[in-house]
Amino acid sequence: MADLLWPGDERAGDVFDDAAFLAAMVRVEEAWLGALASAGVGADDVPLAGVVGADDIAALSAEAEAGGNPVIGLVRLLRERSGSRWVHRGLTSQDVLDTALVLCLRDALDAVLVDVARCAGALAGLARAHRGTVMAGRTLTQYAVPVTFGLKAATWLSGLADATDVVRRVRAELPIQLGGAAGTLAAVVELARDSADRADPVEVVAGLVRRVAGELALQGGVPWHTRRTPLTSAGDALVTLADSLGRIGADVALLSRPEIGELREAAGGGSSTMPGKANPVLSILLRRHALAAPGLAATLHTAAAAYIDERPDGAWHAEWATLRTLARRSVVAASQAADLLAGLVVEADRMGARAAENAETLTAEQRSMSGMSGRDGAAGAYLGANDLIIDTVLERAGRLWKDLA
Amino acid sequence: MADLLWPGDERAGDVFDDAAFLAAMVRVEEAWLGALASAGVGADDVPLAGVVGADDIAALSAEAEAGGNPVIGLVRLLRERSGSRWVHRGLTSQDVLDTALVLCLRDALDAVLVDVARCAGALAGLARAHRGTVMAGRTLTQYAVPVTFGLKAATWLSGLADATDVVRRVRAELPIQLGGAAGTLAAVVELARDSADRADPVEVVAGLVRRVAGELALQGGVPWHTRRTPLTSAGDALVTLADSLGRIGADVALLSRPEIGELREAAGGGSSTMPGKANPVLSILLRRHALAAPGLAATLHTAAAAYIDERPDGAWHAEWATLRTLARRSVVAASQAADLLAGLVVEADRMGARAAENAETLTAEQRSMSGMSGRDGAAGAYLGANDLIIDTVLERAGRLWKDLA
Amino acid sequence: MADLLWPGDERAGDVFDDAAFLAAMVRVEEAWLGALASAGVGADDVPLAGVVGADDIAALSAEAEAGGNPVIGLVRLLRERSGSRWVHRGLTSQDVLDTALVLCLRDALDAVLVDVARCAGALAGLARAHRGTVMAGRTLTQYAVPVTFGLKAATWLSGLADATDVVRRVRAELPIQLGGAAGTLAAVVELARDSADRADPVEVVAGLVRRVAGELALQGGVPWHTRRTPLTSAGDALVTLADSLGRIGADVALLSRPEIGELREAAGGGSSTMPGKANPVLSILLRRHALAAPGLAATLHTAAAAYIDERPDGAWHAEWATLRTLARRSVVAASQAADLLAGLVVEADRMGARAAENAETLTAEQRSMSGMSGRDGAAGAYLGANDLIIDTVLERAGRLWKDLA
Amino acid sequence: MADLLWPGDERAGDVFDDAAFLAAMVRVEEAWLGALASAGVGADDVPLAGVVGADDIAALSAEAEAGGNPVIGLVRLLRERSGSRWVHRGLTSQDVLDTALVLCLRDALDAVLVDVARCAGALAGLARAHRGTVMAGRTLTQYAVPVTFGLKAATWLSGLADATDVVRRVRAELPIQLGGAAGTLAAVVELARDSADRADPVEVVAGLVRRVAGELALQGGVPWHTRRTPLTSAGDALVTLADSLGRIGADVALLSRPEIGELREAAGGGSSTMPGKANPVLSILLRRHALAAPGLAATLHTAAAAYIDERPDGAWHAEWATLRTLARRSVVAASQAADLLAGLVVEADRMGARAAENAETLTAEQRSMSGMSGRDGAAGAYLGANDLIIDTVLERAGRLWKDLA
Repeated sequence: MADLLWPGDERAGDVFDDAAFLAAMVRVEEAWLGALASAGVGADDVPLAGVVGADDIAALSAEAEAGGNPVIGLVRLLRERSGSRWVHRGLTSQDVLDTALVLCLRDALDAVLVDVARCAGALAGLARAHRGTVMAGRTLTQYAVPVTFGLKAATWLSGLADATDVVRRVRAELPIQLGGAAGTLAAVVELARDSADRADPVEVVAGLVRRVAGELALQGGVPWHTRRTPLTSAGDALVTLADSLGRIGADVALLSRPEIGELREAAGGGSSTMPGKANPVLSILLRRHALAAPGLAATLHTAAAAYIDERPDGAWHAEWATLRTLARRSVVAASQAADLLAGLVVEADRMGARAAENAETLTAEQRSMSGMSGRDGAAGAYLGANDLIIDTVLERAGRLWKDLA
Repeated sequence: MADLLWPGDERAGDVFDDAAFLAAMVRVEEAWLGALASAGVGADDVPLAGVVGADDIAALSAEAEAGGNPVIGLVRLLRERSGSRWVHRGLTSQDVLDTALVLCLRDALDAVLVDVARCAGALAGLARAHRGTVMAGRTLTQYAVPVTFGLKAATWLSGLADATDVVRRVRAELPIQLGGAAGTLAAVVELARDSADRADPVEVVAGLVRRVAGELALQGGVPWHTRRTPLTSAGDALVTLADSLGRIGADVALLSRPEIGELREAAGGGSSTMPGKANPVLSILLRRHALAAPGLAATLHTAAAAYIDERPDGAWHAEWATLRTLARRSVVAASQAADLLAGLVVEADRMGARAAENAETLTAEQRSMSGMSGRDGAAGAYLGANDLIIDTVLERAGRLWKDLA
Repeated sequence: MADLLWPGDERAGDVFDDAAFLAAMVRVEEAWLGALASAGVGADDVPLAGVVGADDIAALSAEAEAGGNPVIGLVRLLRERSGSRWVHRGLTSQDVLDTALVLCLRDALDAVLVDVARCAGALAGLARAHRGTVMAGRTLTQYAVPVTFGLKAATWLSGLADATDVVRRVRAELPIQLGGAAGTLAAVVELARDSADRADPVEVVAGLVRRVAGELALQGGVPWHTRRTPLTSAGDALVTLADSLGRIGADVALLSRPEIGELREAAGGGSSTMPGKANPVLSILLRRHALAAPGLAATLHTAAAAYIDERPDGAWHAEWATLRTLARRSVVAASQAADLLAGLVVEADRMGARAAENAETLTAEQRSMSGMSGRDGAAGAYLGANDLIIDTVLERAGRLWKDLA
Repeated sequence: MADLLWPGDERAGDVFDDAAFLAAMVRVEEAWLGALASAGVGADDVPLAGVVGADDIAALSAEAEAGGNPVIGLVRLLRERSGSRWVHRGLTSQDVLDTALVLCLRDALDAVLVDVARCAGALAGLARAHRGTVMAGRTLTQYAVPVTFGLKAATWLSGLADATDVVRRVRAELPIQLGGAAGTLAAVVELARDSADRADPVEVVAGLVRRVAGELALQGGVPWHTRRTPLTSAGDALVTLADSLGRIGADVALLSRPEIGELREAAGGGSSTMPGKANPVLSILLRRHALAAPGLAATLHTAAAAYIDERPDGAWHAEWATLRTLARRSVVAASQAADLLAGLVVEADRMGARAAENAETLTAEQRSMSGMSGRDGAAGAYLGANDLIIDTVLERAGRLWKDLA
């Protein structure tokens, strides 16, 4: 998926692209077909992988409008080409589409988490290396009191840790969707009435659902066909990550300004007309993602609240591309952030020089405080609990990312 | 806070209103002042509660613009009226304002959780009572296969359980904000240099922070002055709840249509011109909240991503009213939903009659399934795992809300 | 309406507050009652102004939930207190509420336009005064080529002109809402059957609608009870203005950074703990509004798309408070911007000195261009069409705001 | 651009796809190069069309990240392959990218307007044909008073007319972006110093800009490099259209419910498991678009407000894909709506029968009104100004779409 209008998109590779989504749908159908056969419910266990492929995407896309989703055409193709009339029996389109969404989302989250760990490693290194690198703290754009760049890096890391907590939680709880036409699993229970061992068909089906969930390594549980928390939570997690990465981008872009010059991207981006320009491109692209992500996550909520009936009249359809866009962009952003942080140039001397030049301003509060007790305010660096805060954040990071411990 | 334009607003009472917010700020200042004194850092431990009050709101509001927030004026008043020059020493505006936001947010979440438990109780009752109440399942607006109203209630309950999980998690993790001017706690560490026992001032301060957090019953931890996950997570939790309640409202409003008539609010709302009209008002007001909530939660994310420096240039200020609006409306909606569900009239006969009338349509899939194995498809209610799903949801609800067990 | 959490809110005074909204509703009822009488349709023409007032707000708000809106209770009060049973005859709640929304919105737009004109005056002055004030142009955070501060002011003015165009258009097109229970005006046509002159009742009603529209100085036309373009367009106009003001705030806040120091607010905001701090408070508060406005305008669209039936099940109710919040904040922001721009301090010397110091960088493109034709690149200020662009913008501004011409 | 996750996407064909965007960028460069030569500023007037093509997209996309946008790589390719060193001289990346966005947007708007006219034709026909087709009016989900289906169609048409007004206005005002590195046009003015006739270089450039604008049939005017009203207005126009189409979809989906059955799509969509299902697929897909569009338009505003400097640090980059997605989906939706409306089946008998069955309820207001004057309320159809409103809407439509007159 090249995309001229989202520079860096190729970092997401084929994660959640049309071919990946098609393959995920086929994987769901195949796992189901196999489980039917194993349970003695269906008769066939034919392989489906490879039965359809990238060449079918255009036709399936075009056909999708007629039924409102691409599953109907897919099932037809799979039945025709595999020769099995048992394909999809007991399922509904939403089972296949939702579970495929979840599988593709998982791939995206996994890619994200790998790069977030790279970010965390870089940030932990920066926090450690620069715990004594004094710089001007700034609030509401103006000089405030001194901080260290290590503290800033630790604060970034702390935000990344928060985001990682929520992304991992969503990752761990990704559920399979198996509910049949209206969430009762009635069709497969009906089929299971004739299963080989004449067991209670509901129990047969419960086992079948567990088996498919296990095969796809997803959580089981009750259908979520009209309860979209799994998707809204994923959206919230990804936008939380976008906030965290976007803030890093915003801070780096700001501190890379020539008048400030305290940070620098390893390789700045050039210009089509101005020689010698070095723009903080990765920071800018992170910030771009953070500007666009909240609207996407909000759309998932708007849709979730409109889930009437046993399948709604548009809310379901609004989620798919929205989730995909958010997921792919998250993969891109995490990767860009990891590169940005790995190569970030810290101009510690400039930070220190500026703090020194503005010492009068930066220690105004200190003098005011020491004046409270009649002491002379000239004592020390005025960094407060800088080290303790950095250590606390690093300790948490060590628990979250083992190789940082 | 009367509000002509948000009917039901009075259900939120004084939760998070201006007076409550002012009181929360004072509570923070008082806890801090007391902790300073206890730690031997400050000299005074004067009571602050009652020193300012509702009569001061207009003046403090008007004064807030000059400094950008209401804390500066508040501190001046507190010092003047209490006579203590130690008020606020070591703090910054953001510490007071953020912690007060969190305290007010907690009151809102607590109110929400009480009414959500009422909702859960009503829903569990409906799920149990109507596990055998067959009704038409509908997908994409059309008849699909049979479901039960108990299953629908269980699905609503399941969404509420998801929302409760996230709201409770946010509630349990609400953190105090204590970081000083730029998140280093430098001012209070400076003050603590002169504390009575000459201990390591950073340790003194760490203890002081723990003490204030304990007194306010908030989590301690590192400052989150530029890492806004506590607020964005609260926003996400509340919009997740709004989705869940909004969906119930949408379903009830739909099923209350005269052509369907399967549900009815206990007391429908009237009209200014049409005698005898009975509108599903509570459902409509729930849906209203769900339509407006996603934009508010998204704003919290947009702001969070713009948190440059040690305090940003507008993003902080954008959060306050946004969070308050979302929180108060959540209290209102949870209360309305509890009333709605407590009084919901289920027209079980009409559900059953409709299902019977449309049996041909509703069992088309069943015939198709049983045809797969050559059986006659007339067998049974075609409700699949209805009971198992309801039981699974009720079991989860019993773990979440103990009195449901 | 004091608001501790939206500093500056008092600038909006009583525009669109509950009392103003109540008065607007009464004004609609009164105009209608008078028109009924004039047309010989109703019997009474009693004055309604003053019949209800601020003391009734709490009770009307509380009562609003039962019917879903505050009109039902209002009509009851008006009939009781005025003694006229003709009050509201032929209207529906939506007629009164929507028209009152429009009236309050108009007051807000008028207030906005007054302050926008102040902004325009200040900007035109800055553009003229600083057309030769050279400063560094910056793109993607880095030095680019020279610009002038006059050009920057002209660009801000240009954005304000765009926003003014759309706000004025919305202002000019504000429509009355008169449609009756389902948009057919059937009730009043029914009443008009008995009008004195036995004219065609539809013509009587058409005249009556024109009369009320004329009295309220609103546009007539067909009902827009389920076509919400008047409100979404207002939202879009106000968010367009917010963009424009927010960008000014963002630029001023940036250029007020101590490392840059090219602009300064006349009166910077202070700190609760740091002596001597001068924050660009007005800029920050403008930016705050711009961060929060898009979510509000988007909610109006989300609602508009959900306008099923002849009055929808929640979408209508979601608009009221959303529109009010956006409108009041727009009044506040326009006023703050006018003050900001009136007092903006331009550090022209510092701009010039920085441009001179960085001449090598700022003229890299110039050398590259002149090198295309083999010329020596040292020629002139490299300001291109600076003057022409400023003049073009000023000319447009002169057409938009006559006192600028 | 096949898209499995946005059924119907192929309706947008190649509008605004990567190849179209690339071609648009090349068209801008070519027009500029030709204008340079004509003005005697540049030396070459070589053809650029066809110099790059679809095969270059992947490489250009991948290369785009380094500079943050695809123009830098494109310029390199164009210079290499065309042999002209004059390509892009005087421009900046933003000139090319923004103008190409506008060109692609125009194609999308044109496609939209064609299909909106089809919608209008169908709606005018429905309004005329069904001006006497009585049906139950419904408010807040409940029966209100009678309306006609013609009136409903007219109301839909009225919304479409509003949207058309704003879309056409945006279409007519689409501006070229030509400003150079920082919006001063300095580079091209520099080049024009050596133009053949030694005219005032600013005048030469003004003519050159007019010429290129004319060739691309865009409006000229001052640069809008940091004033994004052209794009936010386009977003607002498209979401206004989405509201209008989404409302039609919501109404059709609702009235297609089996319990109501008053409308029906010509060809309903099927199910992957339930034989005989006929879902209102086009309505559902319209509603999908309307649910997702507001978040996209809001993102354009959020970005616009963040346009600091002479080119911002991320806000520009956030617009491109957002605008494209919104534009393509608008083309899809307009086309789907046109098909939906062309084939809409109106069950006039069922409408009439329901109105008759519920006459008691639907005329409650009528009896109340006629009771005001002591008349017997049994008079007539209680349709008020139904015909007048329909005629007024049709008259407006006749002005907007000439073939409807």
